[in-house]
Amino acid sequence: MPECCRDNIVMGIDPGLAALGYGIVKFEGDKVFCIEYGSINTSSKDILPVRLTKIHNSIVSILEKFRPCAVAIERLIYCQNVRIALSMGEARGATILSVARFGSNIVEYSPTEIKQSIVGRGRADKEQMQKMVKTLLNLKEIPEPNHSADALAAALCYVFSTPLKKAIAISMEK
Amino acid sequence: MPECCRDNIVMGIDPGLAALGYGIVKFEGDKVFCIEYGSINTSSKDILPVRLTKIHNSIVSILEKFRPCAVAIERLIYCQNVRIALSMGEARGATILSVARFGSNIVEYSPTEIKQSIVGRGRADKEQMQKMVKTLLNLKEIPEPNHSADALAAALCYVFSTPLKKAIAISMEK
Repeated sequence: MPECCRDNIVMGIDPGLAALGYGIVKFEGDKVFCIEYGSINTSSKDILPVRLTKIHNSIVSILEKFRPCAVAIERLIYCQNVRIALSMGEARGATILSVARFGSNIVEYSPTEIKQSIVGRGRADKEQMQKMVKTLLNLKEIPEPNHSADALAAALCYVFSTPLKKAIAISMEK
Repeated sequence: MPECCRDNIVMGIDPGLAALGYGIVKFEGDKVFCIEYGSINTSSKDILPVRLTKIHNSIVSILEKFRPCAVAIERLIYCQNVRIALSMGEARGATILSVARFGSNIVEYSPTEIKQSIVGRGRADKEQMQKMVKTLLNLKEIPEPNHSADALAAALCYVFSTPLKKAIAISMEK
């Protein structure tokens, strides 16, 4: 764990080679807030070492800025095809290595675990998930691009899976 | 390029999560020698961040020891299924990021380019490739495990793709 890690900040990552979504949430007592979200983009015109180095440098900058106590990342289980799976895997490998070497705690969740934690059932569709992320974080709009909404969902899954889960869930019901 | 990089040493890598093959070759004049080959193994009992960090640390140790002028790596195009592709991608992403951050030059070759360069035709089978690696490097046995033979083939592909290619090819015919 890096020095000065902030116990109440969590980073979520939705890894991809062309666009990697990230989201930072903060929880205080029984409340959870969105601090920042966005996308790290790399160009297919660049060679793979350049793209992976850009992902690494951007992730390390965000970790240095926010010092999250944990980084939540979706565990990939399914992909449309082998080519996309290879590319997603490359981005995931570089991302997880960057976070691990920084010293942050990494937690992987299956898509079902994230959906279950956000919407309350494992078979929720993408639109339902995005609307729920907007509601839970009290945002004016659904986060764009999609990847950043998915990253925020992963971060929320971590928050809701901690002992604070019950307190926050109760707060949300009010 | 890292300081003290040795112009006549090339590293080849055949990336995999459970077993990553590597091979170091050295070329002098019109001759090419095998310096070392082996495998970096990680256990499926460990979590992904631990496995990728082990791959990173092992690769950096090898790069520090041999200071190759280039690292040759096979570009993956095909995989049996999506699950294997994701895992291979994760190992490739961590490997390529580790090499790029060390400052070494990375060259990716397609399987066809490697086969063409080693056996003279792009459709050679695995056994023909391994025998040819043994012959080209004047080894007593076919390198084991398979991954290290594939890594040596990638390193040889780099050597044979340089201006030295012609001189070495002529030497091999003698």
